[in-house]
Amino acid sequence: PPRKAAPIERQLPCSLEDLYKGITKKMKISRDVLDSSGRPTTVEEILTIEIKPGWKKGTKITFPEKGNEHRGIIPSDLVFIVDEKPHAVFKRDGNDLVITQKIPLVEALTGYTVQVTTLDGRTITVPVNNVISPSYEEVVKGEGMPIPKDPSKKGNLRVKFNVKFPSRLTTEQKTGIKRMFSSS
Amino acid sequence: PPRKAAPIERQLPCSLEDLYKGITKKMKISRDVLDSSGRPTTVEEILTIEIKPGWKKGTKITFPEKGNEHRGIIPSDLVFIVDEKPHAVFKRDGNDLVITQKIPLVEALTGYTVQVTTLDGRTITVPVNNVISPSYEEVVKGEGMPIPKDPSKKGNLRVKFNVKFPSRLTTEQKTGIKRMFSSS
Repeated sequence: PPRKAAPIERQLPCSLEDLYKGITKKMKISRDVLDSSGRPTTVEEILTIEIKPGWKKGTKITFPEKGNEHRGIIPSDLVFIVDEKPHAVFKRDGNDLVITQKIPLVEALTGYTVQVTTLDGRTITVPVNNVISPSYEEVVKGEGMPIPKDPSKKGNLRVKFNVKFPSRLTTEQKTGIKRMFSSS
Repeated sequence: PPRKAAPIERQLPCSLEDLYKGITKKMKISRDVLDSSGRPTTVEEILTIEIKPGWKKGTKITFPEKGNEHRGIIPSDLVFIVDEKPHAVFKRDGNDLVITQKIPLVEALTGYTVQVTTLDGRTITVPVNNVISPSYEEVVKGEGMPIPKDPSKKGNLRVKFNVKFPSRLTTEQKTGIKRMFSSS
């Protein structure tokens, strides 16, 4: 039986926006095929890849026998592997999205409103009424990545906080803070 | 040439205090030896191990040929391997010691004095004048573990902080805090 060439793997870098919304990518490839007389000629082909919402890094899309044709051997499969480009704002954690907001201590203590532009361009506003300690996490249900099996469902958006302490305080401020806290 | 039996390894659990100050440990072992007529008899022996200040987990002390005697074979070496027992207060990081102190936010902002009982029982007091953010680390030079090559030198003591935020604040407190911080 004719031998089959080993698969050719190619990375397919996708933005988090693409993986959130889904996208159709057209990939131009050039490959050798054998003409009717058995001579190799190079042809160009356009392959269409439909990225589904919620796909993860490592997802493989296989185009069978799209490698170069050689006499007496079955052409290799061409495999695209989804890779996730780093995003400036969001990190992905499975089906969840994670952001970190840097906020001053005074807002962490007295009240802060999270404002985020989602991957599909909506603005969401989440007022946090709790005291925001450095380990505090605000979970926004259903604002994570779509779940591939059921893209009508989504993971969560988890908002973490980097609470920025003042680098120095005056004696007056310290006295005031002590008084404030002792009255609790 | 006579074959030698594979070494016997035994863990030697040491407290951090022992590794700090050094200690002499006496280990009772029982082993088979061959008497003058070649018959095995069990004898007990006391081995003395001198733990030097600053020794680390994994240090091996070998007693050559202290395994059981068998006819026609060289007795195995007996190897003790230093293991470090977990300590309630200190963690070891190479030659450094690390402690974490849980402090209320108000003290993190207005002033805090570290008090530590060292592994040799001294009390050291370190006033911290900086604002203590959650990532703040106070380094006390020379209060870490002794350095085995020169036990007159020591690593550092690193004090980390777990800043405990209040779980809730009154409206009055929030107003006061806002006023305090805006005056900076």
